[in-house]
Amino acid sequence: MKLLLKNAQIVNVFTDRLETANVLIDDKKIIGVGGYDDSDADKVRDLSGKIICPGFIDGHIHIESTMLTPSELTKVCLLCGTTAIVADPHEIANVCGLSGIAYMLEASENLPMSVYIMLPSCVPSTGFDETGAVLEAENLAVLYNHPRVLGLGEMMNYPGVLAEDPQVMQKISKAHEFGKLVNGHAPLLGGKGLDKYIAAGISDDHECSTEEEAMERISKGQHIMIRQGTAAKNLDALLPLFDEPWSRRCMLVTDDRHPADLISEGHIDNIIRRAVKAGKSPLTAIRMATLQAAEYFGMNGVGAVAPGYTADILVLDDLETVKVCDVYCRGQLAVSDGKVIDFKKPEIRSDIRKTVRNSFYLDELSPEDFHIEPEGERCHVIKIRPGQLLTDESITEINFDRNNGVDTKRDILKLAVIERHLNTGHKGIGFISGIGLKKGAIASSVSHDAHNLIVIGTNDDDMAAAANRIRTMGGGNAVVYEGKIIAEMPLPEAGLMSDLTAAEVASQNEEVRMAVHKLGASAEIEPFMNMAFLSLPVIPSLKMTTLGLVDVNSQRLVPLFEK
Amino acid sequence: MKLLLKNAQIVNVFTDRLETANVLIDDKKIIGVGGYDDSDADKVRDLSGKIICPGFIDGHIHIESTMLTPSELTKVCLLCGTTAIVADPHEIANVCGLSGIAYMLEASENLPMSVYIMLPSCVPSTGFDETGAVLEAENLAVLYNHPRVLGLGEMMNYPGVLAEDPQVMQKISKAHEFGKLVNGHAPLLGGKGLDKYIAAGISDDHECSTEEEAMERISKGQHIMIRQGTAAKNLDALLPLFDEPWSRRCMLVTDDRHPADLISEGHIDNIIRRAVKAGKSPLTAIRMATLQAAEYFGMNGVGAVAPGYTADILVLDDLETVKVCDVYCRGQLAVSDGKVIDFKKPEIRSDIRKTVRNSFYLDELSPEDFHIEPEGERCHVIKIRPGQLLTDESITEINFDRNNGVDTKRDILKLAVIERHLNTGHKGIGFISGIGLKKGAIASSVSHDAHNLIVIGTNDDDMAAAANRIRTMGGGNAVVYEGKIIAEMPLPEAGLMSDLTAAEVASQNEEVRMAVHKLGASAEIEPFMNMAFLSLPVIPSLKMTTLGLVDVNSQRLVPLFEK
Repeated sequence: MKLLLKNAQIVNVFTDRLETANVLIDDKKIIGVGGYDDSDADKVRDLSGKIICPGFIDGHIHIESTMLTPSELTKVCLLCGTTAIVADPHEIANVCGLSGIAYMLEASENLPMSVYIMLPSCVPSTGFDETGAVLEAENLAVLYNHPRVLGLGEMMNYPGVLAEDPQVMQKISKAHEFGKLVNGHAPLLGGKGLDKYIAAGISDDHECSTEEEAMERISKGQHIMIRQGTAAKNLDALLPLFDEPWSRRCMLVTDDRHPADLISEGHIDNIIRRAVKAGKSPLTAIRMATLQAAEYFGMNGVGAVAPGYTADILVLDDLETVKVCDVYCRGQLAVSDGKVIDFKKPEIRSDIRKTVRNSFYLDELSPEDFHIEPEGERCHVIKIRPGQLLTDESITEINFDRNNGVDTKRDILKLAVIERHLNTGHKGIGFISGIGLKKGAIASSVSHDAHNLIVIGTNDDDMAAAANRIRTMGGGNAVVYEGKIIAEMPLPEAGLMSDLTAAEVASQNEEVRMAVHKLGASAEIEPFMNMAFLSLPVIPSLKMTTLGLVDVNSQRLVPLFEK
Repeated sequence: MKLLLKNAQIVNVFTDRLETANVLIDDKKIIGVGGYDDSDADKVRDLSGKIICPGFIDGHIHIESTMLTPSELTKVCLLCGTTAIVADPHEIANVCGLSGIAYMLEASENLPMSVYIMLPSCVPSTGFDETGAVLEAENLAVLYNHPRVLGLGEMMNYPGVLAEDPQVMQKISKAHEFGKLVNGHAPLLGGKGLDKYIAAGISDDHECSTEEEAMERISKGQHIMIRQGTAAKNLDALLPLFDEPWSRRCMLVTDDRHPADLISEGHIDNIIRRAVKAGKSPLTAIRMATLQAAEYFGMNGVGAVAPGYTADILVLDDLETVKVCDVYCRGQLAVSDGKVIDFKKPEIRSDIRKTVRNSFYLDELSPEDFHIEPEGERCHVIKIRPGQLLTDESITEINFDRNNGVDTKRDILKLAVIERHLNTGHKGIGFISGIGLKKGAIASSVSHDAHNLIVIGTNDDDMAAAANRIRTMGGGNAVVYEGKIIAEMPLPEAGLMSDLTAAEVASQNEEVRMAVHKLGASAEIEPFMNMAFLSLPVIPSLKMTTLGLVDVNSQRLVPLFEK
């Protein structure tokens, strides 16, 4: 069936111009743009006064961070005009290994948004991470021939690249062998170190927080992904990149964005809107969000409204609000007048589904499991910095006579990270300051990057109750007070994602957040987000893993008690 | 061995800026650009006052048109700063088929200039061409995995694309299956026809002669090759493409350039120089001639002076004259102070060499072979247009009583095209006007695209002598007067290329040219070049093939005598 979209103004991403022309589409492809008329088509839509542009592309996203399944995320993204994302299933791979990647591929097959996959490069992130799987170069290699696998995901292990670690270099060279690209992640790296990192064949970066950093990278050949997520917001600092010559080497990404933000603010459309509001050209911003991402990633025939291109097309109200009315994905109407058109959810093979839905392998816990046997009076305590993922370390006097060392008056709470993939019984227990809970406990299966069970509490009973609730839910977030669950959010898909809609997830998330604040959590922090990063031993300075405390700067285990 | 090039200004093709920095090279690759110093290197060159830029890339060239072997062409190109060419061995493939392509690949292996190959898409060009080989999609497919084969060469058969000819579409889809691109060639095609041609997956064009034509193509997603050859010179008309946004989708090519021009004017450097003289930015022109060609063709790590890139580097005097002092190719000095450093010529397998050097299969010819048996008094005569490849047709009264119809006073000469690949005895003989020879005859093995033996003369004896000389030389150009060879140029490689140096070829070419003019050839024409296109039945309007006269517009054979 031939469809004619007529009388709209078309954003030409090859020329940065608006053209008035008609677009003729046949099935999935654009036949042409120009003097086509009603007689060429089976169906005609008059779009007078509207703008047509290519569908937006998110060049770097972790689906797991949205807590939504690919299907549910697709609905939110489509409403924002996103017709393609490049996802790194890094979190689920730490939990379920190759089955996790297979899940992401299957759960995103034939969606009305194209989901491309970058293979996670750092599973686990360090030797301290007890993950559900370890992925080496040869494990990943089998997947490069998948038509939606575009390369190797963010190579966070930049010290490994600089040291020419054979395992790391093998992962990179394997991707190159298959003609695939390698995403970067090396915040603040510059000069000769950056040269070496780039020369290894790592061709982009999404961690730039200053224009100087981004411009050095562009000058050295990298492509820059301007990131605006829920926590990491780099757009304002990187606005100068929307000007020439920089814009030619940039694209737009969200990396990690929560469902509430996706619903209220938007997705890539939100970044474009903000850039336009800051005075940047909408035509440039749209080019960055479409053609440039597509060409960088080698997505053939995607990213433009032009002959032979896939008909991923947006109908916008105007170029100021970037309000998305209709979305065509592969020639099919996917959003009509601001409403997503129902689509069939992909089937997932039962074995894969079973692995992902049963990712917890952990015996029931008792309050005694959270008990700390005193071996001294002074402990290494993790201190949270509000609004940051960085933590500090303090040596603090702990009085074990009362409540096994917890002291809510001084904001000294207990923190535990419990291995949950292989039921090894490994656990790290210690103290944390800065969360501010006055009572109860919270627990979660989201704890980067290994996603073990993490618990913070004011007493061992509530900690055990919260932890066991996560266990019985098969993953999620829980808030407990006096043994009772007062709020919870199940994340049954690998302990990372919900099976509910974006609106439901956003609402549950808010309930859980409010419940923690009711227990006294400091208004300055996002308790579950801060907690989720307390286990990541690549962000300084003191973190808790299943093996115990880790001093990130020296990459050494630290005993709880001062010696 | 680590080499430091210091104190030069570096053309940054990512930012269109000049940077003062030092470049550190290790073996074939660039380690980095920046604050490297003597202590980082084993060898240091001070390039104060000089400019460093990436090596130039010719995105579309026919090596055969230079009449030089790949080795000899490399020497001339290197002196001009060209470190990579994309060659379509279209002419030799018409003569020797896959062996011809194999010859080009072998003869260009490991040269100090990178020679990439596009597989000829139209062998033969039409059904009227009796060629040495017919290449179908499956014949070509075996070559796509060669690391230097980048795609399918110029798809001249655009009527075949528009008619969705299955053979043509199969050639295109086979290239795409291998992830390769398809070069275009569809002069003056626009509108819906162009949309269809582009939508078939043909992503560039080098035949644009007006800015409007080029801009339409860019707007529709094609990349434009701005061509400046010996005969076809499009630069002046396309100068507006050196401005934004157009320049981003353009590269520079020569297509067909003769050795004398390469020596006296240059190669890609000449195009840059001319553009700069016309007021265009040298930084833009260099970007078009380097990074943009490399990225378009997917040449990984080529086209920039940046970390991890192949060290194809030029040292220029300045950005106005674009004078090339030194050339590094893959980190090795290839030109030093304007002189090519000797290199080893590639070995060619003896069977391939034998096929190419023995491409003539034709019995000796006698004057009788050129006799026309009168069947009437009025003939269809080809009329040459000076300075053009287009020909006209006239119905002319021929008096067969004298000299079998040749009448030098009226400039009616005899023209013959004789099949020479399979010794079929097929020949087309007729009359030609516009060459102006008053005596003698000329013959050549260069006659597009089938490269049969072509002869023009004032009498049958000289025509036979000239033709036989081409035959005994195994290819070339010859000028005969009263039975004697008065000038000749052997082209023993497939009847298309010399085995001499560029200077020798240029000088022979000039001798032959002068000799024809001495025989009376019109000063307005280039006799051998005009003659070479008299056999190409895709350029209107009347042409001569081994099957006889062809009316190009109707694509029909035409009898010599008016009926």
